[in-house]
Amino acid sequence: MATAIRNRASPDPSTLERIRRAVGDKACLVGADEIEPYLTDWRGLWHGRTSMVVRPGTVAEVAEVMRIAAETGTPVVPQGGNTGMCGGATPYEDGAAIVLSLGRLNRVRAIDPLNYTITVEAGCVLADIQRRAADADRFFPLSLGAEGSCQIGGNLSTNAGGTAVLRYGNARELVLGLEVVLPDGSIWDGLRSLRKDNTGFDLKQLFVGAEGTLGIITAAVLKLFPKPRDRRTAFVALRDVEAAIELLARTRAATGDQVTTFELVSWPVLELVLKHIPGTVNPLSRRYGHYALVEITSTADHDIGLGDALEEMLGQAAEDGLVLDATIAQSEAQSAAFWKLRETAAEAQKAEGASIKHDVSVPVARVPAFMQEAHARVLKLEPKARLVAFGHVGDGNIHFNVAEPVGGDAKAFLARWAEFNRVVHDCVVEFGGSISAEHGIGRLKREELQHYKSATELDLMRRIKAALDPKGIMNPGKVL
Amino acid sequence: MATAIRNRASPDPSTLERIRRAVGDKACLVGADEIEPYLTDWRGLWHGRTSMVVRPGTVAEVAEVMRIAAETGTPVVPQGGNTGMCGGATPYEDGAAIVLSLGRLNRVRAIDPLNYTITVEAGCVLADIQRRAADADRFFPLSLGAEGSCQIGGNLSTNAGGTAVLRYGNARELVLGLEVVLPDGSIWDGLRSLRKDNTGFDLKQLFVGAEGTLGIITAAVLKLFPKPRDRRTAFVALRDVEAAIELLARTRAATGDQVTTFELVSWPVLELVLKHIPGTVNPLSRRYGHYALVEITSTADHDIGLGDALEEMLGQAAEDGLVLDATIAQSEAQSAAFWKLRETAAEAQKAEGASIKHDVSVPVARVPAFMQEAHARVLKLEPKARLVAFGHVGDGNIHFNVAEPVGGDAKAFLARWAEFNRVVHDCVVEFGGSISAEHGIGRLKREELQHYKSATELDLMRRIKAALDPKGIMNPGKVL
Repeated sequence: MATAIRNRASPDPSTLERIRRAVGDKACLVGADEIEPYLTDWRGLWHGRTSMVVRPGTVAEVAEVMRIAAETGTPVVPQGGNTGMCGGATPYEDGAAIVLSLGRLNRVRAIDPLNYTITVEAGCVLADIQRRAADADRFFPLSLGAEGSCQIGGNLSTNAGGTAVLRYGNARELVLGLEVVLPDGSIWDGLRSLRKDNTGFDLKQLFVGAEGTLGIITAAVLKLFPKPRDRRTAFVALRDVEAAIELLARTRAATGDQVTTFELVSWPVLELVLKHIPGTVNPLSRRYGHYALVEITSTADHDIGLGDALEEMLGQAAEDGLVLDATIAQSEAQSAAFWKLRETAAEAQKAEGASIKHDVSVPVARVPAFMQEAHARVLKLEPKARLVAFGHVGDGNIHFNVAEPVGGDAKAFLARWAEFNRVVHDCVVEFGGSISAEHGIGRLKREELQHYKSATELDLMRRIKAALDPKGIMNPGKVL
Repeated sequence: MATAIRNRASPDPSTLERIRRAVGDKACLVGADEIEPYLTDWRGLWHGRTSMVVRPGTVAEVAEVMRIAAETGTPVVPQGGNTGMCGGATPYEDGAAIVLSLGRLNRVRAIDPLNYTITVEAGCVLADIQRRAADADRFFPLSLGAEGSCQIGGNLSTNAGGTAVLRYGNARELVLGLEVVLPDGSIWDGLRSLRKDNTGFDLKQLFVGAEGTLGIITAAVLKLFPKPRDRRTAFVALRDVEAAIELLARTRAATGDQVTTFELVSWPVLELVLKHIPGTVNPLSRRYGHYALVEITSTADHDIGLGDALEEMLGQAAEDGLVLDATIAQSEAQSAAFWKLRETAAEAQKAEGASIKHDVSVPVARVPAFMQEAHARVLKLEPKARLVAFGHVGDGNIHFNVAEPVGGDAKAFLARWAEFNRVVHDCVVEFGGSISAEHGIGRLKREELQHYKSATELDLMRRIKAALDPKGIMNPGKVL
């Protein structure tokens, strides 16, 4: 079992005073109103406490704060844009930890278009990095709903996914080097911009996805790519979920692997979107069981016939019965309208009522069988539950959400959260899948991690945690 | 400094007997002739000793051997195809370690074309995996000189590079899951075939590139890709090394990032190849200072105009003075002839005489300045030294080799190995580069690693080593 985190002592006033002297008054927030935004996670699942939110302005200051924390045994919760989905950046209710916000470390240190790299500090907002890359005629592909406020340090610490993973990989695949302040306050300078470096253990991999439990990422060298020049978006009605997998393989073949996005939207999702989101329309006149949003992009500086290839491939797929209907966007506006149907899925679902969410993945080829089996088990548990599933089917990641029965009691439904989790997660594991595809563990799935991971794997994780953070002060009670 | 490894006790006969009982007589080699092939590294730099070479036939047997080794404190050297360049798989001369050969673990456990994955055991030969993928109309891109005999377990343990890194990444990027026998003999089953999985620390990253110092990789889930359908190969004479970097960027843009290979060959290399390798001809009539071997491939199932794009781009580059001459292969035979000029570079160099090699990388954009500066420093050390540089310039990896002066004394030249290493490696580090781009550390670069890595980084590596292998029995004296 995960250790309970409660009733730890608050930091000694002398510790807070030492931190204040190290970073200056203005970098230390203590007033109730000032610290309030740092105490609640984005989804509002928790409301924590802290004596102080520290906002260092330099890496040296981050290191100094960690040195003091290590000496005094003070727990530290690193926080970026505070947009995480699992409470990883929220302090516990006992107020023992200080919150260390990276927001002021927000310089772009360097951009090197010929080397296709950009060096950024942890507090840089994702959308700003995308813009800086675009200004240099380059492309930074990480893209997700929160990009206007999430920070790259948090993206890396949670190994963020998003809508371009199929083509460009998760955040992990986009980083070449890191600078990290370690739990003892020393600074590891691993800011390399190399495509090849086989000199010992690849330490940066430890900190990516560790959710701040092993150290504090303060800067990163990120990979850039050629800018996409041509983009084609299609909205496709599918015979069934199996057809989605076959269509994905055909789209890869037809376009020379230029598929950026391949998202699944089932009818109940589209129905909710059309009902709750103003200005949305069904791009296809009729109702079908499942749809795919398909986007292909080319970075070539001339037309490589992407549009023709897509049209021809979809025509053949229709002849073969995989595709029941399809439409290709004829303008940027139409493309945006297709995207809106996918991007507002969570919002539409919220408007409809309560739901129990599962951010899961299975091997891509097993998505159809998994969805069928998990759906059947959910219905056995609650015959009136509605399945509102959508997601990044191209990389096997399904947001498998169960909505409350129509006219039901939301509170009673949500009280069964753990029960539904267990049924869906058991099924995920049977299909060789992951109980957290892109959102991480944080505080939300800590008990689930303990339940599903093997003793061997948990033991390895604990040994690494103890080796890097022997005093257990880095974001305790998260992940492990 | 790295600890000296010598004069350790040989394993107790009772330990060897326990291992023999665990895996059977036939799996234990002890005769001098039988074990000879396992005692010398591929380059012939070392000749070690051992009491026994164990060849387990199952993962359970690997685990049992490790349990016995852990109980008895017996060092274990894992070995795959024994084609490593840095002595990582060769036992030390004191004979204290047993060699654990993975060659009998060579089953392809599963192949899943729709999921684009293949699950293989550590002892599978790389070329066999490529073939199995091709039979399923898929592509496994890892490709290197030793592919006919190297094993995937070794490829992953050394994070192998090769000629397709620019497009597909190093071995690390090609693995989704691992099965690992840990130093205490427990088995970690991390054989996931997921594109997205954010459930705690990404443990597989620790074992990839660790050169067998943290555990023994016994199986892996590898990524497959659509098969290339169209391939264009060009041999290009460049204005200078700067022009190579600019041409790389233009080729990426012109082809929509379909560049698989971008290799640099300087005139001294081509000259040696033409002199020593029978049947080679200069594809361009004249002599130029630097050449690039450029290959672009498309996986599209129809012609996307790759040939035209390449021709047009090269024409424009010629007009702009970047390219002095160029020829595009008109047949598979011609393409193979171009490749031969690059692939026989090491062989031709060997035929010419002694050389001191450096497998280094710098940020791609800094390759020209690095080569100029390092060359100048080498000439200062030895005015008659000849620079024989070639390599994967597309990913910043240069094989920066210094050949003995014409008519010089090879032995006296090679005695200056450390002196040349220091000058070149100092320069590499000043340019933000790596002293081992793709070959790893093994035994060869252990002292160099100690010299160049920061105390913080070495300390982190040692802590991880101690956490996973507290008894220090996994390939001791390698890397660290």
